[in-house]
Amino acid sequence: MRLRADLVPQDNLSYQDVVLVVDVIRATTTATAFLEAGASSLYLTAGLESARAFRDDDVVLAGEEGGLKPAGFDYGNSPREAKEAPVGGKIVVLSTTNGTRTAHLAARSAKHVLLASLYNAHAAARLAHQLATEEVAILCAGKEGRIGLDDVYTAGVLAEFLQIMGSYELEDGALTALTTRRAYPDPLEPLHLSAAAQALRQVGLEADVPFCAQIAASPAVGVLEGRVGEALIFKRA
Amino acid sequence: MRLRADLVPQDNLSYQDVVLVVDVIRATTTATAFLEAGASSLYLTAGLESARAFRDDDVVLAGEEGGLKPAGFDYGNSPREAKEAPVGGKIVVLSTTNGTRTAHLAARSAKHVLLASLYNAHAAARLAHQLATEEVAILCAGKEGRIGLDDVYTAGVLAEFLQIMGSYELEDGALTALTTRRAYPDPLEPLHLSAAAQALRQVGLEADVPFCAQIAASPAVGVLEGRVGEALIFKRA
Ligand SMILES: [Ca+2]
Ligand SMILES: [Ca+2]
Ligand SMILES: [Ca+2]
Repeated sequence: MRLRADLVPQDNLSYQDVVLVVDVIRATTTATAFLEAGASSLYLTAGLESARAFRDDDVVLAGEEGGLKPAGFDYGNSPREAKEAPVGGKIVVLSTTNGTRTAHLAARSAKHVLLASLYNAHAAARLAHQLATEEVAILCAGKEGRIGLDDVYTAGVLAEFLQIMGSYELEDGALTALTTRRAYPDPLEPLHLSAAAQALRQVGLEADVPFCAQIAASPAVGVLEGRVGEALIFKRA
Repeated sequence: MRLRADLVPQDNLSYQDVVLVVDVIRATTTATAFLEAGASSLYLTAGLESARAFRDDDVVLAGEEGGLKPAGFDYGNSPREAKEAPVGGKIVVLSTTNGTRTAHLAARSAKHVLLASLYNAHAAARLAHQLATEEVAILCAGKEGRIGLDDVYTAGVLAEFLQIMGSYELEDGALTALTTRRAYPDPLEPLHLSAAAQALRQVGLEADVPFCAQIAASPAVGVLEGRVGEALIFKRA
Protein backbone atom coordinates (compact mmCIF):
# COMPACT_ATOMS: atom_id res chain seq x y z
CA MET A 1 0.00 0.00 0.00
CA ARG A 2 1.22 3.49 -0.80
CA LEU A 3 1.13 6.34 1.71
CA ARG A 4 1.32 9.79 0.23
CA ALA A 5 1.06 13.25 1.77
CA ASP A 6 0.40 16.34 -0.31
CA LEU A 7 1.41 19.17 1.99
CA VAL A 8 -0.39 21.86 0.04
CA PRO A 9 -3.42 21.56 -2.27
CA GLN A 10 -2.70 21.87 -5.98
CA ASP A 11 -5.20 21.90 -8.79
CA ASN A 12 -3.27 19.41 -10.89
CA LEU A 13 -3.29 16.67 -8.23
CA SER A 14 -5.57 13.69 -8.61
CA TYR A 15 -6.38 10.78 -6.33
CA GLN A 16 -7.15 7.16 -7.08
CA ASP A 17 -8.29 5.81 -3.76
CA VAL A 18 -8.63 7.18 -0.19
CA VAL A 19 -7.96 10.81 0.77
CA LEU A 20 -7.73 12.12 4.32
CA VAL A 21 -8.43 15.85 4.13
CA VAL A 22 -6.67 17.78 6.91
CA ASP A 23 -7.43 21.32 8.02
CA VAL A 24 -6.68 20.89 11.70
CA ILE A 25 -7.06 24.61 12.57
CA ARG A 26 -9.99 24.43 12.29
CA ALA A 27 -12.37 23.11 9.61
CA THR A 28 -11.85 19.36 9.91
CA THR A 29 -11.69 19.52 13.72
CA THR A 30 -14.93 21.52 13.82
CA ALA A 31 -16.59 19.18 11.29
CA THR A 32 -15.69 16.22 13.52
CA ALA A 33 -17.05 18.01 16.59
CA PHE A 34 -20.39 18.74 14.85
CA LEU A 35 -20.74 15.08 13.85
CA GLU A 36 -19.86 14.03 17.38
CA ALA A 37 -22.54 16.42 18.67
CA GLY A 38 -25.10 14.48 16.63
CA ALA A 39 -25.45 16.35 13.35
CA SER A 40 -27.22 14.07 10.85
CA SER A 41 -24.97 15.31 8.11
CA LEU A 42 -22.50 17.99 7.25
CA TYR A 43 -22.65 19.98 4.04
CA LEU A 44 -19.36 21.58 3.01
CA THR A 45 -19.91 24.57 0.75
CA ALA A 46 -17.28 26.59 -1.00
CA GLY A 47 -18.80 30.02 -0.32
CA LEU A 48 -20.90 31.83 2.25
CA GLU A 49 -23.66 32.58 -0.25
CA SER A 50 -24.15 28.95 -1.20
CA ALA A 51 -24.25 28.11 2.52
CA ARG A 52 -26.99 30.70 3.11
CA ALA A 53 -29.04 29.16 0.29
CA PHE A 54 -29.49 26.04 2.45
CA ARG A 55 -31.10 27.91 5.35
CA ASP A 56 -34.13 25.99 6.66
CA ASP A 57 -35.75 24.83 9.93
CA ASP A 58 -33.59 21.80 10.46
CA VAL A 59 -30.45 23.37 9.07
CA VAL A 60 -27.70 25.05 11.08
CA LEU A 61 -25.25 27.41 9.39
CA ALA A 62 -21.65 27.47 10.56
CA GLY A 63 -18.51 28.91 9.10
CA GLU A 64 -16.02 31.69 9.09
CA GLU A 65 -15.00 34.81 7.32
CA GLY A 66 -11.62 36.09 8.44
CA GLY A 67 -11.82 33.66 11.37
CA LEU A 68 -15.12 35.07 12.65
CA LYS A 69 -18.78 34.01 12.40
CA PRO A 70 -20.32 35.40 9.20
CA ALA A 71 -23.40 37.64 9.48
CA GLY A 72 -26.61 35.64 9.89
CA PHE A 73 -24.81 32.38 10.69
CA ASP A 74 -25.68 30.29 13.76
CA TYR A 75 -22.11 29.31 14.58
CA GLY A 76 -18.55 30.24 13.76
CA ASN A 77 -15.89 27.67 12.96
CA SER A 78 -15.01 26.91 16.58
CA PRO A 79 -14.74 23.22 17.52
CA ARG A 80 -15.37 24.10 21.18
CA GLU A 81 -18.73 25.60 20.24
CA ALA A 82 -19.48 22.83 17.74
CA LYS A 83 -19.03 20.06 20.27
CA GLU A 84 -21.61 21.62 22.62
CA ALA A 85 -24.03 22.75 19.90
CA PRO A 86 -27.61 21.35 19.99
CA VAL A 87 -27.43 20.00 16.45
CA GLY A 88 -28.84 16.50 17.09
CA GLY A 89 -30.56 15.27 13.91
CA LYS A 90 -29.83 18.52 12.10
CA ILE A 91 -27.93 19.27 8.94
CA VAL A 92 -24.90 21.47 9.57
CA VAL A 93 -23.78 23.54 6.62
CA LEU A 94 -20.13 24.46 7.12
CA SER A 95 -18.42 27.06 5.00
CA THR A 96 -14.75 27.81 5.56
CA THR A 97 -11.96 28.88 3.26
CA ASN A 98 -9.03 26.48 2.97
CA GLY A 99 -10.63 23.30 4.33
CA THR A 100 -13.71 23.38 2.16
CA ARG A 101 -11.77 24.10 -0.99
CA THR A 102 -9.41 21.23 -0.22
CA ALA A 103 -12.26 18.78 0.34
CA HIS A 104 -13.68 19.77 -3.04
CA LEU A 105 -10.29 19.17 -4.69
CA ALA A 106 -10.12 15.67 -3.17
CA ALA A 107 -13.74 14.94 -4.13
CA ARG A 108 -13.01 15.60 -7.80
CA SER A 109 -11.14 12.32 -8.18
CA ALA A 110 -10.91 10.24 -4.99
CA LYS A 111 -12.95 7.10 -4.28
CA HIS A 112 -13.26 7.91 -0.59
CA VAL A 113 -12.88 11.31 1.09
CA LEU A 114 -12.55 11.46 4.89
CA LEU A 115 -12.28 14.50 7.16
CA ALA A 116 -9.28 14.05 9.44
CA SER A 117 -7.83 16.03 12.33
CA LEU A 118 -5.74 15.34 15.39
CA TYR A 119 -9.01 15.13 17.31
CA ASN A 120 -10.17 12.05 15.35
CA ALA A 121 -6.74 10.90 14.15
CA HIS A 122 -7.02 7.32 15.31
CA ALA A 123 -10.52 6.76 13.96
CA ALA A 124 -9.75 8.49 10.66
CA ALA A 125 -6.52 6.55 10.10
CA ARG A 126 -8.24 3.27 10.97
CA LEU A 127 -11.08 3.91 8.54
CA ALA A 128 -8.69 4.99 5.79
CA HIS A 129 -6.69 1.82 6.29
CA GLN A 130 -9.86 -0.31 6.07
CA LEU A 131 -11.13 1.39 2.92
CA ALA A 132 -7.89 1.61 0.97
CA THR A 133 -6.99 -0.88 -1.70
CA GLU A 134 -3.90 0.80 -3.15
CA GLU A 135 -3.19 4.22 -1.64
CA VAL A 136 -3.93 6.43 1.32
CA ALA A 137 -3.30 10.07 0.50
CA ILE A 138 -3.23 12.79 3.15
CA LEU A 139 -4.12 16.16 1.66
CA CYS A 140 -3.25 19.17 3.79
CA ALA A 141 -5.32 22.33 3.37
CA GLY A 142 -2.57 24.77 4.32
CA LYS A 143 -3.32 28.46 4.39
CA GLU A 144 -4.10 30.43 1.23
CA GLY A 145 -2.03 28.12 -0.94
CA ARG A 146 0.90 27.97 1.50
CA ILE A 147 2.00 25.08 3.66
CA GLY A 148 0.68 24.97 7.24
CA LEU A 149 2.93 23.54 9.96
CA ASP A 150 -0.21 22.48 11.88
CA ASP A 151 -1.51 20.44 8.94
CA VAL A 152 1.89 18.92 8.12
CA TYR A 153 2.26 17.84 11.75
CA THR A 154 -1.24 16.29 11.68
CA ALA A 155 -0.36 14.47 8.46
CA GLY A 156 2.63 13.04 10.32
CA VAL A 157 0.45 11.81 13.19
CA LEU A 158 -1.91 10.14 10.70
CA ALA A 159 1.05 8.60 8.85
CA GLU A 160 2.38 7.21 12.11
CA PHE A 161 -0.97 5.59 12.97
CA LEU A 162 -1.26 4.14 9.47
CA GLN A 163 2.21 2.65 9.70
CA ILE A 164 1.23 0.93 12.94
CA MET A 165 -1.70 -0.74 11.20
CA GLY A 166 0.02 -1.94 8.07
CA SER A 167 2.96 -1.88 5.75
CA TYR A 168 3.07 1.30 3.68
CA GLU A 169 5.48 2.57 1.09
CA LEU A 170 6.11 6.27 1.91
CA GLU A 171 6.84 8.95 -0.64
CA ASP A 172 8.67 12.20 0.06
CA GLY A 173 5.66 14.15 1.36
CA ALA A 174 4.79 11.45 3.88
CA LEU A 175 8.44 11.24 4.99
CA THR A 176 8.53 15.00 5.53
CA ALA A 177 5.30 14.91 7.54
CA LEU A 178 6.54 12.03 9.70
CA THR A 179 9.78 13.87 10.37
CA THR A 180 7.85 16.94 11.45
CA ARG A 181 5.65 14.85 13.73
CA ARG A 182 8.70 13.28 15.40
CA ALA A 183 10.36 16.65 15.96
CA TYR A 184 7.58 17.86 18.26
CA PRO A 185 6.67 15.58 21.17
CA ASP A 186 3.96 18.03 22.26
CA PRO A 187 1.34 18.75 19.55
CA LEU A 188 0.64 22.17 21.04
CA GLU A 189 4.06 23.39 19.95
CA PRO A 190 3.73 23.05 16.14
CA LEU A 191 0.09 24.13 16.33
CA HIS A 192 0.99 27.28 18.28
CA LEU A 193 3.84 28.05 15.84
CA SER A 194 1.58 27.80 12.80
CA ALA A 195 0.29 30.74 10.78
CA ALA A 196 -3.24 29.42 11.39
CA ALA A 197 -2.83 29.83 15.17
CA GLN A 198 -1.34 33.29 14.70
CA ALA A 199 -4.43 34.30 12.73
CA LEU A 200 -6.68 32.99 15.52
CA ARG A 201 -4.76 34.97 18.12
CA GLN A 202 -5.42 38.11 16.12
CA VAL A 203 -9.17 37.59 16.48
CA GLY A 204 -9.03 36.41 20.12
CA LEU A 205 -9.85 32.78 19.36
CA GLU A 206 -6.59 31.18 20.48
CA ALA A 207 -8.49 28.96 22.95
CA ASP A 208 -9.47 26.84 19.96
CA VAL A 209 -5.85 25.77 19.49
CA PRO A 210 -5.62 23.44 22.53
CA PHE A 211 -8.92 21.88 21.45
CA CYS A 212 -7.46 21.20 17.99
CA ALA A 213 -4.31 19.75 19.58
CA GLN A 214 -6.11 16.87 21.34
CA ILE A 215 -5.02 13.63 19.71
CA ALA A 216 -7.53 10.84 19.03
CA ALA A 217 -10.20 12.08 21.43
CA SER A 218 -13.11 11.47 19.07
CA PRO A 219 -14.37 8.36 17.23
CA ALA A 220 -16.36 10.43 14.70
CA VAL A 221 -15.17 10.58 11.09
CA GLY A 222 -16.94 12.45 8.32
CA VAL A 223 -17.07 10.47 5.07
CA LEU A 224 -18.18 11.89 1.74
CA GLU A 225 -21.55 10.41 0.77
CA GLY A 226 -22.68 12.58 -2.13
CA ARG A 227 -23.41 16.09 -3.32
CA VAL A 228 -26.29 18.47 -3.41
CA GLY A 229 -25.73 21.38 -5.74
CA GLU A 230 -22.14 22.48 -5.09
CA ALA A 231 -22.12 21.22 -1.51
CA LEU A 232 -20.35 18.03 -0.47
CA ILE A 233 -22.39 15.87 1.90
CA PHE A 234 -20.47 14.16 4.69
CA LYS A 235 -21.97 11.71 7.15
CA ARG A 236 -20.51 10.07 10.21
CA ALA A 237 -18.98 6.74 9.27
CA MET B 1 13.40 40.07 7.44
CA ARG B 2 11.06 37.30 6.43
CA LEU B 3 12.23 33.79 5.61
CA ARG B 4 9.85 31.73 3.58
CA ALA B 5 10.08 28.27 2.03
CA ASP B 6 7.70 27.09 -0.67
CA LEU B 7 8.19 23.34 -0.65
CA VAL B 8 6.59 22.78 -4.02
CA PRO B 9 6.28 25.18 -6.98
CA GLN B 10 2.81 26.58 -7.59
CA ASP B 11 1.73 28.81 -10.43
CA ASN B 12 -0.12 31.24 -8.17
CA LEU B 13 2.95 32.06 -6.04
CA SER B 14 4.71 35.36 -6.47
CA TYR B 15 7.88 36.79 -5.02
CA GLN B 16 8.83 40.30 -4.00
CA ASP B 17 12.51 40.05 -3.29
CA VAL B 18 15.14 37.25 -3.27
CA VAL B 19 14.42 33.66 -4.32
CA LEU B 20 16.77 30.74 -3.82
CA VAL B 21 15.74 28.09 -6.35
CA VAL B 22 16.55 24.57 -5.13
CA ASP B 23 16.66 21.42 -7.24
CA VAL B 24 19.44 19.64 -5.38
CA ILE B 25 19.12 16.36 -7.35
CA ARG B 26 20.37 17.60 -9.72
CA ALA B 27 19.76 20.79 -11.71
CA THR B 28 20.97 23.46 -9.28
CA THR B 29 23.93 21.34 -8.19
CA THR B 30 24.94 20.75 -11.82
CA ALA B 31 24.43 24.43 -12.66
CA THR B 32 26.77 25.37 -9.81
CA ALA B 33 29.35 22.82 -10.97
CA PHE B 34 29.33 24.21 -14.53
CA LEU B 35 29.87 27.75 -13.22
CA GLU B 36 32.66 26.48 -10.99
CA ALA B 37 34.22 24.80 -14.02
CA GLY B 38 34.44 28.21 -15.66
CA ALA B 39 31.34 28.53 -17.83
CA SER B 40 30.89 32.18 -18.80
CA SER B 41 27.15 31.88 -18.38
CA LEU B 42 24.41 29.36 -17.98
CA TYR B 43 21.22 29.47 -20.02
CA LEU B 44 18.28 27.64 -18.46
CA THR B 45 15.74 26.60 -21.05
CA ALA B 46 12.39 25.01 -20.44
CA GLY B 47 12.57 22.44 -23.24
CA LEU B 48 15.11 20.38 -25.19
CA GLU B 49 14.17 21.97 -28.50
CA SER B 50 14.79 25.49 -27.31
CA ALA B 51 18.13 24.29 -25.90
CA ARG B 52 19.12 22.83 -29.31
CA ALA B 53 18.30 26.16 -30.95
CA PHE B 54 21.29 27.71 -29.13
CA ARG B 55 23.82 25.27 -30.58
CA ASP B 56 26.97 27.14 -31.66
CA ASP B 57 30.80 26.90 -31.44
CA ASP B 58 31.15 28.34 -27.99
CA VAL B 59 27.96 26.75 -26.67
CA VAL B 60 27.74 23.49 -24.76
CA LEU B 61 24.41 21.67 -24.44
CA ALA B 62 23.61 19.85 -21.23
CA GLY B 63 20.43 18.42 -19.82
CA GLU B 64 18.34 15.41 -19.22
CA GLU B 65 15.39 13.49 -20.50
CA GLY B 66 14.24 10.79 -18.09
CA GLY B 67 17.52 11.30 -16.18
CA LEU B 68 19.69 10.61 -19.23
CA LYS B 69 21.62 12.78 -21.73
CA PRO B 70 19.30 13.80 -24.58
CA ALA B 71 20.29 12.88 -28.15
CA GLY B 72 22.82 15.31 -29.63
CA PHE B 73 23.68 16.92 -26.27
CA ASP B 74 27.25 17.29 -25.03
CA TYR B 75 26.52 16.50 -21.41
CA GLY B 76 23.82 15.03 -19.24
CA ASN B 77 22.72 16.60 -15.97
CA SER B 78 25.48 15.07 -13.87
CA PRO B 79 27.30 17.45 -11.50
CA ARG B 80 30.31 15.09 -11.43
CA GLU B 81 30.70 15.47 -15.19
CA ALA B 82 29.91 19.17 -15.08
CA LYS B 83 32.66 19.96 -12.60
CA GLU B 84 35.31 18.36 -14.83
CA ALA B 85 33.89 19.62 -18.12
CA PRO B 86 36.15 21.86 -20.29
CA VAL B 87 33.62 24.68 -20.44
CA GLY B 88 35.96 27.59 -19.60
CA GLY B 89 34.60 30.75 -21.27
CA LYS B 90 31.72 28.87 -22.87
CA ILE B 91 27.99 29.24 -22.58
CA VAL B 92 26.33 26.19 -21.07
CA VAL B 93 22.70 25.68 -22.04
CA LEU B 94 21.05 23.51 -19.41
CA SER B 95 17.65 21.96 -19.94
CA THR B 96 16.09 19.90 -17.18
CA THR B 97 12.52 19.30 -16.12
CA ASN B 98 11.64 20.40 -12.60
CA GLY B 99 14.55 22.75 -11.86
CA THR B 100 14.28 24.80 -15.02
CA ARG B 101 10.52 25.22 -14.71
CA THR B 102 10.94 26.33 -11.10
CA ALA B 103 13.57 28.92 -12.01
CA HIS B 104 11.18 30.33 -14.61
CA LEU B 105 8.41 30.54 -12.01
CA ALA B 106 10.68 32.50 -9.66
CA ALA B 107 11.89 34.74 -12.48
CA ARG B 108 8.33 35.85 -13.26
CA SER B 109 8.18 38.05 -10.17
CA ALA B 110 11.35 38.01 -8.04
CA LYS B 111 13.91 40.81 -7.90
CA HIS B 112 16.81 38.38 -7.53
CA VAL B 113 16.90 34.70 -8.49
CA LEU B 114 19.78 32.53 -7.22
CA LEU B 115 20.52 28.89 -7.93
CA ALA B 116 21.06 27.09 -4.63
CA SER B 117 22.07 23.58 -3.67
CA LEU B 118 23.78 21.88 -0.76
CA TYR B 119 27.00 22.14 -2.77
CA ASN B 120 26.93 25.96 -2.67
CA ALA B 121 24.66 26.35 0.36
CA HIS B 122 26.93 28.71 2.29
CA ALA B 123 27.69 30.99 -0.63
CA ALA B 124 24.08 31.04 -1.82
CA ALA B 125 22.68 31.82 1.64
CA ARG B 126 25.28 34.55 2.16
CA LEU B 127 24.48 36.21 -1.15
CA ALA B 128 20.72 35.97 -0.53
CA HIS B 129 21.20 37.60 2.86
CA GLN B 130 23.24 40.43 1.31
CA LEU B 131 20.74 41.10 -1.47
CA ALA B 132 17.51 40.85 0.50
CA THR B 133 15.71 43.93 1.76
CA GLU B 134 12.48 42.30 3.00
CA GLU B 135 12.27 38.59 2.25
CA VAL B 136 14.33 35.56 1.34
CA ALA B 137 12.18 32.86 -0.24
CA ILE B 138 13.43 29.34 -0.83
CA LEU B 139 11.56 27.70 -3.68
CA CYS B 140 11.88 23.93 -3.93
CA ALA B 141 11.52 22.31 -7.33
CA GLY B 142 10.19 18.97 -6.08
CA LYS B 143 9.40 16.24 -8.57
CA GLU B 144 6.56 16.54 -11.09
CA GLY B 145 4.55 18.82 -8.84
CA ARG B 146 5.16 16.75 -5.69
CA ILE B 147 7.33 17.60 -2.72
CA GLY B 148 10.91 16.28 -2.73
CA LEU B 149 12.51 15.30 0.58
CA ASP B 150 15.92 16.18 -0.89
CA ASP B 151 14.83 19.72 -1.73
CA VAL B 152 13.01 20.25 1.59
CA TYR B 153 16.15 19.15 3.44
CA THR B 154 18.27 21.56 1.38
CA ALA B 155 15.83 24.37 2.12
CA GLY B 156 16.35 23.58 5.82
CA VAL B 157 20.13 23.81 5.47
CA LEU B 158 19.79 27.17 3.72
CA ALA B 159 17.34 28.37 6.39
CA GLU B 160 19.81 27.39 9.08
CA PHE B 161 22.65 29.32 7.44
CA LEU B 162 20.42 32.37 6.96
CA GLN B 163 19.42 32.30 10.61
CA ILE B 164 23.07 32.34 11.60
CA MET B 165 23.60 35.51 9.59
CA GLY B 166 20.61 37.50 10.70
CA SER B 167 17.28 37.67 12.43
CA TYR B 168 14.52 36.15 10.31
CA GLU B 169 10.83 35.69 10.89
CA LEU B 170 10.02 32.13 9.75
CA GLU B 171 6.72 31.03 8.25
CA ASP B 172 5.35 27.50 8.29
CA GLY B 173 7.22 26.27 5.21
CA ALA B 174 10.58 27.41 6.58
CA LEU B 175 9.80 25.84 9.96
CA THR B 176 8.96 22.53 8.26
CA ALA B 177 12.18 22.63 6.24
CA LEU B 178 14.28 23.43 9.33
CA THR B 179 12.67 20.56 11.22
CA THR B 180 13.50 18.19 8.37
CA ARG B 181 17.08 19.41 8.29
CA ARG B 182 17.49 18.81 12.03
CA ALA B 183 16.04 15.30 11.82
CA TYR B 184 18.86 14.08 9.58
CA PRO B 185 22.40 14.70 10.82
CA ASP B 186 23.81 13.08 7.67
CA PRO B 187 22.63 14.74 4.42
CA LEU B 188 23.08 11.48 2.52
CA GLU B 189 20.14 9.95 4.36
CA PRO B 190 17.32 12.27 3.22
CA LEU B 191 18.88 12.49 -0.26
CA HIS B 192 19.01 8.70 -0.61
CA LEU B 193 15.41 8.41 0.64
CA SER B 194 14.09 10.90 -1.90
CA ALA B 195 12.13 9.99 -5.01
CA ALA B 196 14.75 11.88 -7.03
CA ALA B 197 17.50 9.50 -5.85
CA GLN B 198 15.28 6.50 -6.55
CA ALA B 199 14.83 7.70 -10.12
CA LEU B 200 18.62 8.07 -10.50
CA ARG B 201 19.17 4.53 -9.23
CA GLN B 202 16.86 3.27 -11.94
CA VAL B 203 19.12 4.71 -14.63
CA GLY B 204 22.38 3.75 -12.89
CA LEU B 205 23.34 7.30 -11.90
CA GLU B 206 23.19 6.95 -8.12
CA ALA B 207 26.83 8.05 -7.84
CA ASP B 208 25.58 11.60 -8.39
CA VAL B 209 23.79 11.51 -5.03
CA PRO B 210 26.91 11.75 -2.81
CA PHE B 211 28.13 14.62 -4.99
CA CYS B 212 24.83 16.45 -4.43
CA ALA B 213 25.07 15.76 -0.67
CA GLN B 214 28.29 17.75 -0.18
CA ILE B 215 27.50 20.80 1.91
CA ALA B 216 29.05 24.18 1.11
CA ALA B 217 31.90 22.85 -1.01
CA SER B 218 31.59 25.49 -3.72
CA PRO B 219 31.72 29.31 -3.66
CA ALA B 220 29.93 29.59 -7.05
CA VAL B 221 26.39 30.93 -7.16
CA GLY B 222 24.36 31.43 -10.33
CA VAL B 223 22.43 34.71 -10.35
CA LEU B 224 19.79 35.63 -12.91
CA GLU B 225 21.12 38.39 -15.14
CA GLY B 226 18.58 38.52 -17.97
CA ARG B 227 16.87 36.57 -20.72
CA VAL B 228 17.42 35.66 -24.31
CA GLY B 229 14.30 34.32 -25.95
CA GLU B 230 12.74 31.99 -23.43
CA ALA B 231 16.05 31.14 -21.79
CA LEU B 232 17.07 32.57 -18.42
CA ILE B 233 20.69 33.75 -18.30
CA PHE B 234 22.58 33.08 -15.09
CA LYS B 235 26.08 34.25 -14.35
CA ARG B 236 28.42 33.53 -11.49
CA ALA B 237 27.99 36.13 -8.78
CA1 LIG C 1 -6.33 25.78 8.55
CA1 LIG D 1 -37.14 21.66 6.36
CA1 LIG E 1 15.10 17.25 -8.46
